[in-house]
Amino acid sequence: MTTFLYSNLYQFTYSVFISIGCSDEHATVATKTLLSADLRGIDSHGVARLSGYVRLWEAKRVNANPQIKIIHETPSTATIDGDAGLGLVVAPFAMQVAIDKAKIAGTGWVSVCNSNHFGIAGYHAMMALQHDMIGMAMTNASALVAPTFSKERMLGTNPIAVAIPANHQPSFVADMATTTAANGKLEILQRKNEDIPLGWAQDKDGIDSTDANIIKKQGALLPLGSDREHGSHKGYALGSIVDIFSGVLSGGSYGPWVPPFPAYVPMPEYQPGKGLGHFFGAMRIDAFRPAEDFKQHMDIWIERFRKATPMEGHDKVLIPGDPEREMEIERMREGIPIVDSVLDDLKKVGEKFDLKF
Amino acid sequence: MTTFLYSNLYQFTYSVFISIGCSDEHATVATKTLLSADLRGIDSHGVARLSGYVRLWEAKRVNANPQIKIIHETPSTATIDGDAGLGLVVAPFAMQVAIDKAKIAGTGWVSVCNSNHFGIAGYHAMMALQHDMIGMAMTNASALVAPTFSKERMLGTNPIAVAIPANHQPSFVADMATTTAANGKLEILQRKNEDIPLGWAQDKDGIDSTDANIIKKQGALLPLGSDREHGSHKGYALGSIVDIFSGVLSGGSYGPWVPPFPAYVPMPEYQPGKGLGHFFGAMRIDAFRPAEDFKQHMDIWIERFRKATPMEGHDKVLIPGDPEREMEIERMREGIPIVDSVLDDLKKVGEKFDLKF
Repeated sequence: MTTFLYSNLYQFTYSVFISIGCSDEHATVATKTLLSADLRGIDSHGVARLSGYVRLWEAKRVNANPQIKIIHETPSTATIDGDAGLGLVVAPFAMQVAIDKAKIAGTGWVSVCNSNHFGIAGYHAMMALQHDMIGMAMTNASALVAPTFSKERMLGTNPIAVAIPANHQPSFVADMATTTAANGKLEILQRKNEDIPLGWAQDKDGIDSTDANIIKKQGALLPLGSDREHGSHKGYALGSIVDIFSGVLSGGSYGPWVPPFPAYVPMPEYQPGKGLGHFFGAMRIDAFRPAEDFKQHMDIWIERFRKATPMEGHDKVLIPGDPEREMEIERMREGIPIVDSVLDDLKKVGEKFDLKF
Repeated sequence: MTTFLYSNLYQFTYSVFISIGCSDEHATVATKTLLSADLRGIDSHGVARLSGYVRLWEAKRVNANPQIKIIHETPSTATIDGDAGLGLVVAPFAMQVAIDKAKIAGTGWVSVCNSNHFGIAGYHAMMALQHDMIGMAMTNASALVAPTFSKERMLGTNPIAVAIPANHQPSFVADMATTTAANGKLEILQRKNEDIPLGWAQDKDGIDSTDANIIKKQGALLPLGSDREHGSHKGYALGSIVDIFSGVLSGGSYGPWVPPFPAYVPMPEYQPGKGLGHFFGAMRIDAFRPAEDFKQHMDIWIERFRKATPMEGHDKVLIPGDPEREMEIERMREGIPIVDSVLDDLKKVGEKFDLKF
């Protein structure tokens, strides 16, 4: 484990995106988006994935110079073709379109096809906050999740993020995979050589498993709820809604046919649409009530929930976004710890482009 | 258990709503909305609640002749004051406004304050389907759910419904409480004198409980995910989003201050807003891509998921809405079974208004 300053990681990551042929503007956006994951403590989605993006570019599955286009629109909606660009670039573009629509129509909703992985959903949703808007972001991803009663993987971990502004209190920011546990949590236990709890994953026959490596053995992650008795059909429905809004509504791919992130995994033979899909929303607060009123009530909401009587063994009840915000402050100040395997990976990426890490 | 034809239940329920002073139009809407729960097999939300609505009216917490008003709007949004009307009447009104907005602006989003319980969320979301729109409905409710790490009840079971049209396949209809199990499921086990599974509820000290009556003993339902290790912070975030969109955005009440459904429970002393809140959305499919294309791909999506390899012991993978749709066909034909306690309750309601049940 080595700790790096944000500015150092930024410079290196930016240079890598420039090296694969991104414009200065796109490299800047991609770097900020990617590193927001490391800052917020979602290590699985940050620089740990940089080499993966490079490999997708090498495999010609990512276009470093996309012409991102609005292909259809109404006053409150748009459909965007990402031209196979980095999701890290396509997503902020699309979220900005949603925000611009909301300025005029009250809300803006954008479905995106022909994109790639977009980093953490929360980053895009949070773009709305400075405009006194509620932001939403979701994306589909390649299939790792088995629906309730299924042995087969049919859905990605399909995250949903919702960011809601407050007044004196920090914003409410929920950013969650629609599975019981995100894949990154399994990876952490893999590295420690520890078991995963029952209820996170199943083996290839659909039997509950404690093997942290089970996904590599044709196992599957479980939808939020874990099993039917504990509501996994709800997690399955949520993941499906994300898939449909992101993939089917946009003209992207969906379900088991979503393109895989690892470039060594062949593309599914059948492609019902183009690339990964995302879905974004922005709702202007004052399209419903005066923004100041709303934000004052959000302060009351947040303060009341923070004061809920905690269980024995817990200091306090958290508000969605609390841990990530605290992590961001800490890591901006103290630096970002990078585990050795990711460090090696980044060094190799550097060598590829004659960049020193 | 006695089985009644839909038409008989309809006539009785309609007459009760007329008896409390609803107009013919409102009584019709309220009856259809309420009985959609019985038809779809969500027995806890149908005629079983009729006496509860009557008691709210007796306690002057429900206005049988509401002047439902749009108090603010933009091209794609509206805020509605339900004038303390039956949610069963206010909600279809508001959903229609969302649909009308979507016809012009591409999407419509309506936040509602000063309402009451609205029956099942799925009914309202499904209103969008005939217009080739995606429908959404959610509502807050009085606090029965403890956030992650909380002993205190802070949220209602706050359901989310999403209805998505297909072509030859039946529509995708998800309708779910944001808890592991809906309160109605506990009530079923109470009647059978059976325990509930671990992971559904906790006692007043926050300890996991198997007592089906624990909610009556200051216990709490658990958010979807059950515990922190299995993602209960995600269920808590979802329930919170529903509360904020429904209550805070509309100027309604929220969190632990949402008015209780049982009329004998006193109103919370502090009221940050007016009544229960709901939130509705309608998105015109062809605001994103041609509706025929979308619906054909929804058929492919549904057919592929139905064909996912099932686990041992299960015939097939279900699509959200399958069980409720099958139940509706069966109950429309065979009748609706009413348990004895509900039957007694309905008879008493009938006596009150000199109506024969």
